[in-house]
Amino acid sequence: MASGDASKKPQEQQQNIGSTTNGEDFAQGSYGIIPLIQSKEKIDRQLISVRDINETLAKQTIWVRGRLHTSRDKGKQCFLIIRHQSATIQAIVSVNENVSKPMVKFATTISKESVIDVEGEVSLSPTSIESCLQKDVELQVKKLFVVSSAEPRLPLLIEDAMRPDDPTGEGLQVPHVLQDTRLDNRVIDLRTPANQAIYRVEAGVCKLFRDTLDAKGFVEIHTPKIISAASEGGSGVFQVSYFKSNAYLAQSPQFYKQMAIAADFGKVYTIGAVFRAENANTHRHLTEFVGLDLEMAFNYHYHEVVNTIGDLFIQIFKGLAERFATEIAIINKQYPCEPFEFVEPALRLEYQDGLALLGEVSVQMGSEDDLSTENERILGRIVKEKYHTDFYILDKYPLAVRPFYTMPDPINPKLSNSYDMFMRGEEILSGAQRIHDTQLLLERVKHHKINVDQIKSYIDAFRYGCPPHAGGGIGLERVLMLYLGLGNVRKTSMFPRDPKHVTP
Amino acid sequence: MASGDASKKPQEQQQNIGSTTNGEDFAQGSYGIIPLIQSKEKIDRQLISVRDINETLAKQTIWVRGRLHTSRDKGKQCFLIIRHQSATIQAIVSVNENVSKPMVKFATTISKESVIDVEGEVSLSPTSIESCLQKDVELQVKKLFVVSSAEPRLPLLIEDAMRPDDPTGEGLQVPHVLQDTRLDNRVIDLRTPANQAIYRVEAGVCKLFRDTLDAKGFVEIHTPKIISAASEGGSGVFQVSYFKSNAYLAQSPQFYKQMAIAADFGKVYTIGAVFRAENANTHRHLTEFVGLDLEMAFNYHYHEVVNTIGDLFIQIFKGLAERFATEIAIINKQYPCEPFEFVEPALRLEYQDGLALLGEVSVQMGSEDDLSTENERILGRIVKEKYHTDFYILDKYPLAVRPFYTMPDPINPKLSNSYDMFMRGEEILSGAQRIHDTQLLLERVKHHKINVDQIKSYIDAFRYGCPPHAGGGIGLERVLMLYLGLGNVRKTSMFPRDPKHVTP
Repeated sequence: MASGDASKKPQEQQQNIGSTTNGEDFAQGSYGIIPLIQSKEKIDRQLISVRDINETLAKQTIWVRGRLHTSRDKGKQCFLIIRHQSATIQAIVSVNENVSKPMVKFATTISKESVIDVEGEVSLSPTSIESCLQKDVELQVKKLFVVSSAEPRLPLLIEDAMRPDDPTGEGLQVPHVLQDTRLDNRVIDLRTPANQAIYRVEAGVCKLFRDTLDAKGFVEIHTPKIISAASEGGSGVFQVSYFKSNAYLAQSPQFYKQMAIAADFGKVYTIGAVFRAENANTHRHLTEFVGLDLEMAFNYHYHEVVNTIGDLFIQIFKGLAERFATEIAIINKQYPCEPFEFVEPALRLEYQDGLALLGEVSVQMGSEDDLSTENERILGRIVKEKYHTDFYILDKYPLAVRPFYTMPDPINPKLSNSYDMFMRGEEILSGAQRIHDTQLLLERVKHHKINVDQIKSYIDAFRYGCPPHAGGGIGLERVLMLYLGLGNVRKTSMFPRDPKHVTP
Repeated sequence: MASGDASKKPQEQQQNIGSTTNGEDFAQGSYGIIPLIQSKEKIDRQLISVRDINETLAKQTIWVRGRLHTSRDKGKQCFLIIRHQSATIQAIVSVNENVSKPMVKFATTISKESVIDVEGEVSLSPTSIESCLQKDVELQVKKLFVVSSAEPRLPLLIEDAMRPDDPTGEGLQVPHVLQDTRLDNRVIDLRTPANQAIYRVEAGVCKLFRDTLDAKGFVEIHTPKIISAASEGGSGVFQVSYFKSNAYLAQSPQFYKQMAIAADFGKVYTIGAVFRAENANTHRHLTEFVGLDLEMAFNYHYHEVVNTIGDLFIQIFKGLAERFATEIAIINKQYPCEPFEFVEPALRLEYQDGLALLGEVSVQMGSEDDLSTENERILGRIVKEKYHTDFYILDKYPLAVRPFYTMPDPINPKLSNSYDMFMRGEEILSGAQRIHDTQLLLERVKHHKINVDQIKSYIDAFRYGCPPHAGGGIGLERVLMLYLGLGNVRKTSMFPRDPKHVTP
């Protein structure tokens, strides 16, 4: 980077600064647009993160890299707000012994969102700067270079994109950014403090999922996404051209995690993409999402697994509250939301009890009917009121509404050893004890009129001994959406895929 | 499980045991095939893992679940080997006050690989049992139940599948199992001690990758696999039917991890499936593999990133040696291999130095030619001899052989800020500083004759400011194959995908 040591290459500097200099500018080496950083030199310079600047650095001169969030021109002064990830600080370019008039003018010409390097002295702010994360300190700029210029016309403004949808509660009086505009310009939209925080919390969910299961002896596995036949029935599956033949995209790692159990891995989990070719444009459907899947051999009763999964969620909820309080506060600022409530151990209700609770509010359902999304939500509200929890387990679903590989209840043939789990009244996990016996599996395959030939290798997996096992699959985007009360899975998928979005 | 408490349901027990009982068998409640475990009862019984049985449990009566690995009939005795994952123990069914003749006979009829529950007293072995992991203890069986029967004819025998390919070094005198037989019957093949260990080490590589990068402030992200255009040129990409249109499977998360950098995430990694529609049937190509990808904004020189990645590998190598010594020993028993050698910090050579080393052994190449797989291997041998490392970094590749988004060298326009990394002479990472400037990117797109319209959202990502950044992509299966010297990526992919295999 030539401009970092202006004394060596004054001509290059001057050229970059352009028409703002006339040879008399005493600050001419202290500002400008630097050449593309192409790794020409190794510069021994520490950059301080905006987040880490505080009073202890007062009077020290430091270097900072960030984006120009906003700038205000006040004649001989220019007030910049520098943003790095969720953190912001005010920087003042003011005519003085280091800063010339042309330099201040240059500062006013920098386009918003440009990446800049600033050298400045840390000073205590005379008054608290409410618009910045750093309210008590600011930077007195000595040098100012543009590292990467943003085009002057932005498709959306970060200030608009970071505003609560309806800050006054009295209808939209201020500009806001529509979902489609956000998704079409996702790289800019993702720069908002809320989005910076959301995807860090999302990483936290995955880490808590893995750490909790690692501690319980689970093994992480990877399952193929390209498969020879639809894993859970023919509908809703994407077809892939596979050399001279066709293949499909896995709708879940179901068959493979079960095969890992038949292969003696005992307890397994996998985090990966799953695909659903459903032409559903709702707040909670994506055509590609991240599945957190687990499967576990148990000794004698599938509740061993239900308890493991219930505890897993509780560890995730606790871990998020403990480790991500700062991020959650940032997100709540844009998307206000009731704190997530849960009880320990997790509440487990039986399906029939759920129907009875619905009956109390005059929602009538047949005992073998599946819960509609609307009834799930109503039940969630009843459970929340009665048990004070936003998370619960609904156990023993009717066999008729579950996949063919679900273990029937040992006593009531109309029920099954299966369960869903809910957050704020929406389903976020579906699971069951699986059939680990080939004969029973074949009966159920026949009952469901599934073509046995297509799933031969799956069926065969149970011919050579398999321990009883159960598991479940969690939708990552849904968990985060519901935990944070965001209302749309597109807010928790970095580059969401739905029937209308395959780009960016 | 009815048979666990035989006193309650003698009829059911008797029925299960079948013709081996005649009403006079005093042990009739102590053995048999139990009904399918359908979670009828919660049984309060601790199962001890085979791995955890040792001398301290001597004279104690314990319950164990495992597979019948082998059985030997010796008249009034039957010697069983019980296997659980990589651990084995001998169990003796011997006529005595607990065990009747019909019970011994029953033991001899159990098919190999069946899952069994055994109650037995731990005793010290009179002589060391060389064929088992537990050499000093064995079980005197009191009860014996089959939990899940294996069909008697196995497509392959575990004893054969766990044998070194050529144990005598004098040609194959003993049965072994061919790769295709293994893959066609993967669920059984995966039960071998070596395979049990391989996928635990593989999970370890992922964990070490994440933990090392988490500690350096990286954020885990998830990138879409379904994309609207081929990410790295049109060849080698799978096409997907996407509702009324077509889409493609991502050949790497390249564009998306770079967009995450343009979106201010700073340092990101992602672990996920990547797809290559290459009709290559080699020891190192898969059509679907697990990519460990990272991307990182740097300050002034891409070597900041090269050093981060170099250190990452060293942490992985160290962590594997520390945490997985047992597993690696098990794998080496079947697949002998020289220990993996490395130096710290990682060795970095320039491409031209590499060509000079090859020149010394009369391998002549043009300075802008790419390294062939064969020349990579030769260079690996030279480097190993000269620098005593199986891992090294080759820096500054010719621009002509790298993708369009690679940053050119700032001085020599024929070179680039790009690198590959090698293990035992095979490439396991490819990376570079990327072009973060739209104008230069457009020039390179034009030079490579790529259709700009197809990658518009990627190009646009750099229009609104982007910090300089670099990264790389690692093939998980290759890393593990080379670390363990396994010779084929199909040995490190649980359910490998190649042009000929999409099932199981």
